[in-house]
Amino acid sequence: MSVNQTQIEMLRKLLRHGATERVVRILERFRPAEIADLYGYLSPAEQKQLTTVLFERQLAAETLSELPEHILVELLSNLGDGRISQIINRLAPDDAVFVVSKLDDERVEKILNGLTPLQRERIEHLRAYPAESAGQLMTSEMIRIQEDVCADEAIDIIRSLGSTSEFIFYIYVVNETGTFLGVVPLRRLIVASPDCPVKDLMVPDPIAVYATDDQEDVADITARYDLLAVPVVDDNFKLLGVVTVDDILDVLQEEATEDMYLMQGLSEEDRVYAPVTHSVKKRFPWMILNLLTAFLAAYVVGLFEKSISEVVVLATFMPVVAGMGGNGGTQTLTVVTRGIALGELDYNDGMSAVLKQVGIGIIVGAGIGLLTGLVAWAWKGMPFLGLVLFLSMLVNMSIAGLAGAAVPLMLKALRMDPAMGSGVLVTTFTDVSGFLAFLGLATVFIEYLV
Amino acid sequence: MSVNQTQIEMLRKLLRHGATERVVRILERFRPAEIADLYGYLSPAEQKQLTTVLFERQLAAETLSELPEHILVELLSNLGDGRISQIINRLAPDDAVFVVSKLDDERVEKILNGLTPLQRERIEHLRAYPAESAGQLMTSEMIRIQEDVCADEAIDIIRSLGSTSEFIFYIYVVNETGTFLGVVPLRRLIVASPDCPVKDLMVPDPIAVYATDDQEDVADITARYDLLAVPVVDDNFKLLGVVTVDDILDVLQEEATEDMYLMQGLSEEDRVYAPVTHSVKKRFPWMILNLLTAFLAAYVVGLFEKSISEVVVLATFMPVVAGMGGNGGTQTLTVVTRGIALGELDYNDGMSAVLKQVGIGIIVGAGIGLLTGLVAWAWKGMPFLGLVLFLSMLVNMSIAGLAGAAVPLMLKALRMDPAMGSGVLVTTFTDVSGFLAFLGLATVFIEYLV
Repeated sequence: MSVNQTQIEMLRKLLRHGATERVVRILERFRPAEIADLYGYLSPAEQKQLTTVLFERQLAAETLSELPEHILVELLSNLGDGRISQIINRLAPDDAVFVVSKLDDERVEKILNGLTPLQRERIEHLRAYPAESAGQLMTSEMIRIQEDVCADEAIDIIRSLGSTSEFIFYIYVVNETGTFLGVVPLRRLIVASPDCPVKDLMVPDPIAVYATDDQEDVADITARYDLLAVPVVDDNFKLLGVVTVDDILDVLQEEATEDMYLMQGLSEEDRVYAPVTHSVKKRFPWMILNLLTAFLAAYVVGLFEKSISEVVVLATFMPVVAGMGGNGGTQTLTVVTRGIALGELDYNDGMSAVLKQVGIGIIVGAGIGLLTGLVAWAWKGMPFLGLVLFLSMLVNMSIAGLAGAAVPLMLKALRMDPAMGSGVLVTTFTDVSGFLAFLGLATVFIEYLV
Repeated sequence: MSVNQTQIEMLRKLLRHGATERVVRILERFRPAEIADLYGYLSPAEQKQLTTVLFERQLAAETLSELPEHILVELLSNLGDGRISQIINRLAPDDAVFVVSKLDDERVEKILNGLTPLQRERIEHLRAYPAESAGQLMTSEMIRIQEDVCADEAIDIIRSLGSTSEFIFYIYVVNETGTFLGVVPLRRLIVASPDCPVKDLMVPDPIAVYATDDQEDVADITARYDLLAVPVVDDNFKLLGVVTVDDILDVLQEEATEDMYLMQGLSEEDRVYAPVTHSVKKRFPWMILNLLTAFLAAYVVGLFEKSISEVVVLATFMPVVAGMGGNGGTQTLTVVTRGIALGELDYNDGMSAVLKQVGIGIIVGAGIGLLTGLVAWAWKGMPFLGLVLFLSMLVNMSIAGLAGAAVPLMLKALRMDPAMGSGVLVTTFTDVSGFLAFLGLATVFIEYLV
């Protein structure tokens, strides 16, 4: 069931009137994720009231872990430290780490102090892993069984665990020292004969990731092997926890955002819901870098001021050469960066990808250059202007193909993120080479242009 | 285990020598997804030989459904129709539909004719759903149980199904007419008392999608409710199948690619591995549209040829104004488009997002404009050039914020994809407004510039 406008209006009215009982009756119809959605439609005061109701009904932790990030951040800033500690106490450790990561640094210590010692220890344990690592994503809520336990005993163990998470579809088999040996899908356990030891049921040589592995690699492995949960081990292959696929879905969305953002030099925190001052602070340094490259292009144009003053129509066509080169370069960049992110380039070698994109640049540049040249000739009645445009478009689109493909591949070779600032690098190349080619050729042919 | 270079070299040598037995011994160490990875390192001839070996061992279907798309396409073009029919016969219907969708149109009919009648019917049934719909993604390999069956009978049913997919973690409860009532997680079934009817175990009011729903919506629901499989129903809430989360991972990656591509006017088929001619054909129409907008910018510059011929240094600074505006616009566009894709904008209204981005544009434009103005003044010794640059950067960055936010929101309001060609639209706005502001203001102040 999805939330509708009438229900929202009703809920807001009831919250304002403090009609707790009736609020609860409405909330009973919804899942935690749906209650979380409701927050988006409420004023901060109403959000706080709703949170109070959820607290009374012990629904707060469950609901708050489903809130969209920006609403969570806002709500946390409106809740007292004690309340937040109460919520975090009730969360799974991986969700708890996520909520803690959204708190202001100065509050973290106070809120951690308000937790039960066990939960505090669990959270600090996870927080010790590198940011965006498998260790921070994993949960230890899983079923770990010794290799010589029988199927029926294993089922008894699952029964005895009672009402913990239902996100349990595998059992994990370890030896007496905790070394990870294999997984048994729950279904196989059901079908097995009761006295069969789990080590005979398990899928051996299991796929696993190290706790320090990057979340992007964990996502790749999950997608590649169609896993629902990836076991996480330490250097000695001791089983530490599992990363579940629901967290992987979030990672994939995050990583796609990161790629798009890095290409444009955006900070990940620069979101539609971020405050203006925050976005401005994040964009400024990048804009200054952009400005430097823009001045580089301006410097190149400045070299040809004499030619432009003799043939002012050159200024008119500058945006055509630079604009088309920039577009071609950005297109190539997008194709190659995405190819790297999706692992499509592991199969080709980089050089053939570069050559291919240069080939596309030459063909598209020749076609588009011809068209541009003919239009310019017809518009301004200057055949040599047409020729210069044709040649410079051909050169610039080829360089666009080269830069668009080579920049991300070189960044990757330097072990940097292939998307990192690649947009500005590529357009700098195409601006500079476009102006050099166009104004340089025009200077060569200047006697036919005046 | 991951594939290493030595193993690949060994495998290639063995394939060339036709040492089938030893090839098989190497392959036994790998999972299907790993064997699929091997294909990327082989020549087309070696790929064909490997496929033959896989056929003999009945591993071909399992492996080929894991191949990356571009290798699959290549391999399909090298295999005979009969072979392909054999493979498709052994695939799950949703994977089969995927493979069929990669075949040339003229082969489809022949290959469908070579299938078993049952598989053919299943595939044609799925192919009847809209492209990129839940119907095309779903599998019917799931366990459907009548509401009054007891837990122990349900377990017997699961046992009797033998060795089908182990990707089964829920059972689906229906009434006698097939209407979908609820789901029972496998774990709950194990823990339940044997004579408890499944209808008392199930989670009622289940989340489900319609077969005609777009895959993007299915992915959103899966991520939002942390599901492993989404039930698919028809208009009468009859259960048709389930979409499993492994397919959703692929959908998320596809949709992210689509957004990045649409912003740059790229066709989805324009991939790093696509042939040059294919990419050229896809990019041409878009480049011609780009050219039209570039000529629009050129036309605007042309209006001010008189001013430029009087103050040729204006030409030098044209790239700075246009370039910075383009960057600012693309940054805003990226933030807003991603916000829409991730559903972050459902919570704010569009107008406040536009205002916020205009605000960022004004502040960044003022800062960067001031810097540009001062540098230009110092460089060229012309204070009024500095003033004109400051003002035009301020105007252009504000328009960049406006266009970058308003374009995707308007596309969305028109029920188009918010990313659709938005990159070129936004840079057209910033180019035109940048040149108008800069050259227009310069013309107003022309007496102070000469």
